[in-house]
Amino acid sequence: MKLNIAVVGATGVVGQETVKILAERNFPLNSLKLIASESSAGKTIKFRDQEIEVEKLERDSFEKIDLAFFCAGGDISKKYVPIAVNSGAIVIDKSSVFRLDHTVPLVVPEVNPADVYKHKGIIANPNCSTIQLVVALKPIFDLAGIKRLIVSTYQSVSGSGKLAVQELERQISQYLNNRKITRQVYPHQIAFNILPHIDVFEDNNFTKEEMKLIHETKKILGDESVKITATTARVPVLIGHAESVYLETVNHLDINKLKMVYLKSEGIKLVDDTSNSKYPLPIMSEVYDDVMVGRIRKDLAVVNGINLWIVANNLRKGAALNAVQIAELLIK
Amino acid sequence: MKLNIAVVGATGVVGQETVKILAERNFPLNSLKLIASESSAGKTIKFRDQEIEVEKLERDSFEKIDLAFFCAGGDISKKYVPIAVNSGAIVIDKSSVFRLDHTVPLVVPEVNPADVYKHKGIIANPNCSTIQLVVALKPIFDLAGIKRLIVSTYQSVSGSGKLAVQELERQISQYLNNRKITRQVYPHQIAFNILPHIDVFEDNNFTKEEMKLIHETKKILGDESVKITATTARVPVLIGHAESVYLETVNHLDINKLKMVYLKSEGIKLVDDTSNSKYPLPIMSEVYDDVMVGRIRKDLAVVNGINLWIVANNLRKGAALNAVQIAELLIK
Repeated sequence: MKLNIAVVGATGVVGQETVKILAERNFPLNSLKLIASESSAGKTIKFRDQEIEVEKLERDSFEKIDLAFFCAGGDISKKYVPIAVNSGAIVIDKSSVFRLDHTVPLVVPEVNPADVYKHKGIIANPNCSTIQLVVALKPIFDLAGIKRLIVSTYQSVSGSGKLAVQELERQISQYLNNRKITRQVYPHQIAFNILPHIDVFEDNNFTKEEMKLIHETKKILGDESVKITATTARVPVLIGHAESVYLETVNHLDINKLKMVYLKSEGIKLVDDTSNSKYPLPIMSEVYDDVMVGRIRKDLAVVNGINLWIVANNLRKGAALNAVQIAELLIK
Repeated sequence: MKLNIAVVGATGVVGQETVKILAERNFPLNSLKLIASESSAGKTIKFRDQEIEVEKLERDSFEKIDLAFFCAGGDISKKYVPIAVNSGAIVIDKSSVFRLDHTVPLVVPEVNPADVYKHKGIIANPNCSTIQLVVALKPIFDLAGIKRLIVSTYQSVSGSGKLAVQELERQISQYLNNRKITRQVYPHQIAFNILPHIDVFEDNNFTKEEMKLIHETKKILGDESVKITATTARVPVLIGHAESVYLETVNHLDINKLKMVYLKSEGIKLVDDTSNSKYPLPIMSEVYDDVMVGRIRKDLAVVNGINLWIVANNLRKGAALNAVQIAELLIK
């Protein structure tokens, strides 16, 4: 079975990564249509030996398309995902628009692969910070249950797109050259700074990013009883999100047993040798696709309390790779 | 009462800040002796209108000294603090050597000022990440008690000294110029990276920095029953430590009441207007000496759960300023 594939938002950071991963993984496709906004139409993007010209997004873009990856943001998904589905395409959507819709499966292949087959045309790809979290939590959830989860994130600027990467690079250059630091993307300087603010603030004073992490984690684990809180922060890192995680299991969990299970878990790389200064680092995520877990330790004060440090590439496992893995599940 | 003051480690980042703060606050001194290692002796440092020559640290450096600030690291403190005390000086020590000694008060003037008068020659200055934490916690502790505390830190490179600041600046310059990124201070690249590793690892797989935060917080609050866990991480920020804090109070605490108390608390600046993107930022700590608190919100899942975001200048309130405030208490 070879598919006619479309990538919407093909010139963005996640779209480009999606094209790269389709090539890397030798995804069985018949044709690849690259779609973007009018301003990017006409550009070419390399795929295997071809140079593919980017087409402008139109209402008829999805004719004869079997599978469409949407990586162009919420507004585009809201308008064009239903159009693509009506044209007969299955959509893997990377925006947050459909994630909490009860009729739409929200899938991380290592965690809830069976959910993919419940789709009615749309499968949602979770938020980057959720994906790496649930991959690392799944073995714990299966071994001992999880009753409490407290997450603080350290999220890279590539999660905000190309302009944000350019903003960080420009600001550090301005700093080194003693020039005024200018900003366009973030509400404050991001170079040499930490912003506890990702996406918009909701009425409860949590950010939408924090609420995504809370709700999506419960949906993917299939357990609404887990008590979750989160603080998400943007850090001056280019690629790779880190998460400091504290959790309490329902039942006792032996740390050494957990490490053994991690060593055998697909999609997880255990990096936990503190005596040799080995622990997951954002820059390692440019090399490894697996979700990296380390700094695993029993809490000193609370029975069944465990601390973890989780890192993954937010553009690949946190977005494009997870979406391609969903597609691979679909065609199995 | 005008004192003969000595600053040991006067050419380091904290030592320089101490000299600056003594001048800024018009500290009542009769003489100021600046002391450093042999390699820095002979340099001059500006204090008010004077240029003071730095002297080499010797066994007889503390003759006629009334009060000595030690900011030269643990090894120097271990050897020379007892010598200074035997010479008749009172020592305010910024190293971790004496902090958990039962005979040595560990003081943050906004939190436990009375402890300062129990000294037997040495008063310990807490770790930077502990100071800002306990300043922000004290009003909560007084209003409702604290039973659980989970902290994840975002700590700037200036906490590791001058060479670390230079390392971050050099690495971003190497990155911008497409040159190989070199390192000397940290075990991994710090530019565009996050290291969940501050100070050395202990046998329990917590770092010494994490254990300092746990033990020092209990000692300063005077409550060993608070259950604390911490993950400390180094971030590519020059000055200012941030902390993502989750806590559970013993009794119910109204968030609006807490904010009112913060508004009136000495040493605290409430920065919590998320609808206008206002929250504490590391770069703000270069301007404000107060410990900044924001992102205050009730937990959505646990009764008496509260989230906070705390930022302060690690060189000033986190080190030099707190030490000078201790000295001001002493001479009151």
